[in-house]
Amino acid sequence: MQNVNESLWPLKQVLIMGVEENIENIANILRLHSIRSTTKAGSGHPTSCLSSAEIIATLFFSVINVDPKHIDYLDNDEFVLSKGHAAPILYAALAEIGVFPREKLMTLRQFDSELEGHPVPRVKGIRVATGSLGQGLSIGLGMAYAKRLLGIDRRVYVLLGDGEVAEGSVWEALNLAGKLRLSNLVAILDMNRLGQSEPTMFQWNWEEYANRVKAFGWNVTVCNGHDVKDLMRAFNEAKNSDKPFFIIAKTVKGKGVSFLEDAEDRHGRALSKEELSRAEKEILPKIKDAVFEPRNFIEAKIPIEPRRKYSIKTEYKMGEMVATREAFGKALVKLGEQNEKMVVLDGDVKNSTFTIYFFEKFPKRSLQCYIAEQNMVGVAVGLQTQGFDVFLSSFACFLSRAYDQIRMASFSRANLKIAGSHAGVSIGEDGPSQMGLEDLALFRAVFGSVVLYPCDAVSAEKLTCAMANYEGISYIRTTRPKTPVIYDNSEEFHIGGSKVLRCSGNDEVTVIAAGITVHEALKAYEKLRAEGINIRVIDCYSVKPLDIETLVKAAEETKHIITVEDHYPEGGLGEAVASLGLRPNILAVRKMPHSGKPEELLAEQGIDAAGIVSKVKELIRKYHPLRTFS
Amino acid sequence: MQNVNESLWPLKQVLIMGVEENIENIANILRLHSIRSTTKAGSGHPTSCLSSAEIIATLFFSVINVDPKHIDYLDNDEFVLSKGHAAPILYAALAEIGVFPREKLMTLRQFDSELEGHPVPRVKGIRVATGSLGQGLSIGLGMAYAKRLLGIDRRVYVLLGDGEVAEGSVWEALNLAGKLRLSNLVAILDMNRLGQSEPTMFQWNWEEYANRVKAFGWNVTVCNGHDVKDLMRAFNEAKNSDKPFFIIAKTVKGKGVSFLEDAEDRHGRALSKEELSRAEKEILPKIKDAVFEPRNFIEAKIPIEPRRKYSIKTEYKMGEMVATREAFGKALVKLGEQNEKMVVLDGDVKNSTFTIYFFEKFPKRSLQCYIAEQNMVGVAVGLQTQGFDVFLSSFACFLSRAYDQIRMASFSRANLKIAGSHAGVSIGEDGPSQMGLEDLALFRAVFGSVVLYPCDAVSAEKLTCAMANYEGISYIRTTRPKTPVIYDNSEEFHIGGSKVLRCSGNDEVTVIAAGITVHEALKAYEKLRAEGINIRVIDCYSVKPLDIETLVKAAEETKHIITVEDHYPEGGLGEAVASLGLRPNILAVRKMPHSGKPEELLAEQGIDAAGIVSKVKELIRKYHPLRTFS
Repeated sequence: MQNVNESLWPLKQVLIMGVEENIENIANILRLHSIRSTTKAGSGHPTSCLSSAEIIATLFFSVINVDPKHIDYLDNDEFVLSKGHAAPILYAALAEIGVFPREKLMTLRQFDSELEGHPVPRVKGIRVATGSLGQGLSIGLGMAYAKRLLGIDRRVYVLLGDGEVAEGSVWEALNLAGKLRLSNLVAILDMNRLGQSEPTMFQWNWEEYANRVKAFGWNVTVCNGHDVKDLMRAFNEAKNSDKPFFIIAKTVKGKGVSFLEDAEDRHGRALSKEELSRAEKEILPKIKDAVFEPRNFIEAKIPIEPRRKYSIKTEYKMGEMVATREAFGKALVKLGEQNEKMVVLDGDVKNSTFTIYFFEKFPKRSLQCYIAEQNMVGVAVGLQTQGFDVFLSSFACFLSRAYDQIRMASFSRANLKIAGSHAGVSIGEDGPSQMGLEDLALFRAVFGSVVLYPCDAVSAEKLTCAMANYEGISYIRTTRPKTPVIYDNSEEFHIGGSKVLRCSGNDEVTVIAAGITVHEALKAYEKLRAEGINIRVIDCYSVKPLDIETLVKAAEETKHIITVEDHYPEGGLGEAVASLGLRPNILAVRKMPHSGKPEELLAEQGIDAAGIVSKVKELIRKYHPLRTFS
Repeated sequence: MQNVNESLWPLKQVLIMGVEENIENIANILRLHSIRSTTKAGSGHPTSCLSSAEIIATLFFSVINVDPKHIDYLDNDEFVLSKGHAAPILYAALAEIGVFPREKLMTLRQFDSELEGHPVPRVKGIRVATGSLGQGLSIGLGMAYAKRLLGIDRRVYVLLGDGEVAEGSVWEALNLAGKLRLSNLVAILDMNRLGQSEPTMFQWNWEEYANRVKAFGWNVTVCNGHDVKDLMRAFNEAKNSDKPFFIIAKTVKGKGVSFLEDAEDRHGRALSKEELSRAEKEILPKIKDAVFEPRNFIEAKIPIEPRRKYSIKTEYKMGEMVATREAFGKALVKLGEQNEKMVVLDGDVKNSTFTIYFFEKFPKRSLQCYIAEQNMVGVAVGLQTQGFDVFLSSFACFLSRAYDQIRMASFSRANLKIAGSHAGVSIGEDGPSQMGLEDLALFRAVFGSVVLYPCDAVSAEKLTCAMANYEGISYIRTTRPKTPVIYDNSEEFHIGGSKVLRCSGNDEVTVIAAGITVHEALKAYEKLRAEGINIRVIDCYSVKPLDIETLVKAAEETKHIITVEDHYPEGGLGEAVASLGLRPNILAVRKMPHSGKPEELLAEQGIDAAGIVSKVKELIRKYHPLRTFS
């Protein structure tokens, strides 16, 4: 521990105390940092920090095996602050163990400080973003599973608020961790009784939590969250547990400041300067300027390795009928052979998304997440913090279940490779509940994302490889029905690319398609050509980023642009192209989707070859009313 | 029960049997329908139907109080098929109780049949769409809560699959139903051991489910799901329960057809014609053409009332500083006074979204859903099926948690009024985890949705009223900081409208704004005007549908269009305008968002007045390179 900085508080004593007294002392130092930094910022959640002061102090100064100098190494214990609004006290703990200078704490929430209102991995010692509640335990599960895969004997500690335990995602994580018997995962519930707007569902009725969590396959203990000795007892039990371990810590929101203790209507409110002054008068007398050598600090030795570069070769025959979802599955196996740190997750649809090929080939690096998409994404975020390349898959529409987790993953600067199958009405008879019709909109709206949509097996495999090499959040959209291979195995595909499939000196209209509609556009080309009309056909397989140059050139060279997509018009391919200022005529899914044969549904929505032909003729007629077609 | 149709099976006997024998007979009739209709369709989930045959037969012919002639009336018991892929057997049961002709069953999954692959309320007797797993119990909870509010002593039965119980949303629903002690809610778990791709987490280990569900505050029983007598015992227990009741029915997937029983790799596969013929040989001998008078049928008497029409008056002073989220909260109270069947739900943020005003005024019609957004949306869907007008609110970003439920609500043809607060970077210090930056994209991509985004208190209240009157899914986006009132109380606002706030004969650029950026555009107008540049300013408060006429006119009358939004560029206001072919210059959130003061963040993203001014000048200079500004 650094010596207490004079500028921050006036007391000066050097005492030798016992471990518990030292940790109590540190808890109050963390309290002081939390209320001072939030008052300086003029906002924040001081009372949520105060309830967890002893928990955090005990963890960082006695329990967690951590190397403050190499806190990003893999052989540290991990800590996830699921109740992200208590960020100030986490920052305070990181400063006190020496990860960054204590002075930085007072920059909390400022425009140019990395100490944001809720944790983000810009801060040294923090691996993931939290602040949308109920996500931390899934991430911790992923980290704990990663340590197990890596053979690193370290634990993962996740601090939960009691309000967030209402989130189903917490129970998804409890469920899978119990099933996997992840004994290196420890959750601590800061049971401070009060939510944001009123008391929590169960207030201090700890048995409600204990019964639930036990039933989910965890060992559970209860302790006084302000009694360091009791906390240390609980953490010792955790270390000897043969299952994941859950500590219910009974706490008081606002603990340590009399007028904040258990006070309703103090959530998310900083203290006024006058209140701060009163609060300091209560806390300062408890603080001693002590020298303390924590015994939990270690020398970490395992850095995260640089990421592997993948390559891929395909062996398809032109015209062969292969579903892109299956090609994706085949690619996973080829990529998995190149990197032992590539893992694949699936939510009980591996035989539809074709991750089953990977599951069968690499069972140890495959994780069945069952039908729990939120947890699956959280687990993936946790895994990638430990240097794994993670692919995860489900039906495109069911990934929408985890959108909040995916959104948060972008603030975690996570490296996630997501595959959504069963895109669009072309799935056919199963009907709209199973159709991905908004996934392009959703994934395009993820900060920094890449969105890919191959139309054949060759491009599907090569784009899967491009995702593997990309660092960030990438998404591949695959199709249920089989489609013909249209590319030679030597073709290359890259993020931000496109392919001009048909082109002549006198193209009247450009048709920009992706995925299943590429094949409809090619059929339309043949029909129109037979009538003496030339169209340009572009396979816009990179929906984000777009191949701007090729699209702008086509717009300059042909009078009209049509986009055609098996997706709602909002936020899809058409709007992406429109955002370039290219005025596309957007063909998309505009009628209430329902069951039927794929070809019937494509026709009904006007996104099949006939729909394209009809639109092309309509556009030409607009400018040449008298023109007839052969 | 209708007499068995000769064309469907050959046996002809009239026997008087006991109730149980009759129900067993019906179960086999339902089996026959399920395998025949799926084989005819060439797809579907026959084995998932077969496991629930006795459960469904017992429910529809002995347990559920239902009036087949008025199955849409409120004083029926309700049934929700959460495992929506078993749709064929639900359709079969509805046909057998006489809701529609049995012949229709063979149109399953056809293009022009309402008997879709998964249930939708196009089918008489079905109130909601299911098929995305884990959503039915929340909907059932909403229905049961509605019956309680209405004082109607009827029960709600929800049939769950065992795979879907991994979804956290199921536990959110179990949790709230337990807390509310909804004794009129009964869940039945069809524990058939097999998921889609492999066995479920707990297979036939019923204690894993029983322990969990008991801990969540439910009464639980276990029964043999193929033994009608045991099922009837379980349902009788349910009727006497003082808590919500959970029946674990041990079943066999594929039951009744020897080569399908407990067979893996038969999920979601119809029988071939040859297989069907073999299966029929096993089932037909068990079927008797019996006349049976079920005793559970009732005469329902309470139709759903026509919806109420709302109106609203505001009393603000021009220039008064009021947050749109607070105006929304005030409007809710005014609307609530006009209709006793208006209810409001919130997820522990009522003091931030300002639904707290409604909660305080109408506590009985307010439901605290705690931090569990998925369940909140499901509950809302359930409530609206019983004739309630339902508003629900959370932070815009946290609504993304429930996107799968919202997407499914569109297929339920639900009438939902959703409010998302804390839109954009303008929330400031709390940082990106709390910022709604993709909500316009998400809600625009909901089929048939309306998306509203008011900039001041007057328009916020009036648009809240417009939502109340709209039937479908509508969304209002509100802002955290206070903004000045710019509209007179006499102004009217409607879905699909906009307001031209500044307009002259020589506007050089049109600025299309919404919400917080309207105020930035007005400031930019003043600055530019002082330099001799006129711009048109449009408040585009209806983001979907857009006021096409006004926007197109502005594009014709001014050289350039700028859109400015506190949202990512993908799927937002700018792309919506671009989709009209108007070539806007899109100002939006393009840099990684973080903490800071609202004005610093708006400036950083170039979406404040200075950013607009700068863009206007850049556009003008493009065409007049030598022009200088005063």
